[in-house]
Amino acid sequence: YAPTRCAAAQTSTEQGILPPCHHHETVHDPQLVPCTCPLFSCPWEGHLEVVVSHLRQTHRINILQGAEIVFLATDMHLPAPTDWIIMHSCLGHQFLLVLRKQEKYEGHPQFFATMMLIGTPTQADNFTYRLELNRNQRRLKWEATPRSVLECVDSVISDGDCLVLNTSLAQLFSDNGSLAIGIAITTSKAHNAEAEM
Amino acid sequence: YAPTRCAAAQTSTEQGILPPCHHHETVHDPQLVPCTCPLFSCPWEGHLEVVVSHLRQTHRINILQGAEIVFLATDMHLPAPTDWIIMHSCLGHQFLLVLRKQEKYEGHPQFFATMMLIGTPTQADNFTYRLELNRNQRRLKWEATPRSVLECVDSVISDGDCLVLNTSLAQLFSDNGSLAIGIAITTSKAHNAEAEM
Repeated sequence: YAPTRCAAAQTSTEQGILPPCHHHETVHDPQLVPCTCPLFSCPWEGHLEVVVSHLRQTHRINILQGAEIVFLATDMHLPAPTDWIIMHSCLGHQFLLVLRKQEKYEGHPQFFATMMLIGTPTQADNFTYRLELNRNQRRLKWEATPRSVLECVDSVISDGDCLVLNTSLAQLFSDNGSLAIGIAITTSKAHNAEAEM
Repeated sequence: YAPTRCAAAQTSTEQGILPPCHHHETVHDPQLVPCTCPLFSCPWEGHLEVVVSHLRQTHRINILQGAEIVFLATDMHLPAPTDWIIMHSCLGHQFLLVLRKQEKYEGHPQFFATMMLIGTPTQADNFTYRLELNRNQRRLKWEATPRSVLECVDSVISDGDCLVLNTSLAQLFSDNGSLAIGIAITTSKAHNAEAEM
């Protein structure tokens, strides 16, 4: 296994069951320091097989189980940059949902959501993840292949290769400042069979 | 029927089967002049029942038929503001797909896609439209109730209550500068039955 460097903030664990993970004041620049873990500013380094226990123990990140789960991200009004993180245990693997509020364009925060496999890129290619928002007679679905946590979540987000929401769209899908994100993981084989419209 | 004012540009009909509709140099400000037709800068006014023939004859906008169609928007690289328009005949009604490239934030063009019913808001409430992008193991679906052409497409877009694509995401879904958008219309009854995850 390749070593994994985790750069997580001191997650504000007092805020609830699924607390947002606030960034430190110095925002990590993906151009300068390649990251191999989706969390910012944590000096921890380790191998893939201990990433899950590190995330649970140090950052108090919860694991949800099941083929289809719903992640409730609270306090969507918090200023950028902010991360919301949950682990998803499914099909014998652990996945990490990263929802990030970030100002790609100054003064215009956007939400970016992606799934990472806690595994290698080759393993990640075997899966398809689906994120779904559904509220108020509107529905938005994003399906893609997860990235590996050995890749950089920052570049996924800066490339825009993920679910992207403007603040106005996020508000349309939110209820009392909380965003419910339906998450489903399937194997790629099933995805390919149904991929053609 | 309420009168409809159409403000369309002189659509560049020489460019192909489904040409983009370029805006005039003066960009219409939705705050100053309420519009009742999704096309810019056309002085025509008329009733709902003659909107379709006006769009066909004056702006050479094509009609595609069928429950599910695919609209190919070409030349996605064209500078903002640009509109791509197609009419969709389905379930006894005509719908208008408006895909707009616009710089909501200066220097950062985005794509906005929505469906309008050529009918009243009450009629529009009976339908659900789905827009789907599917390419390169990525899929993005947006479902919502269409607006009426008597409402203002500009406010739909400025509210962000539509499918929104950053340029990078649009490129991921494009093939040789063209974006294939799958379009399906259903009645709301069917939508409500399957709306819950």
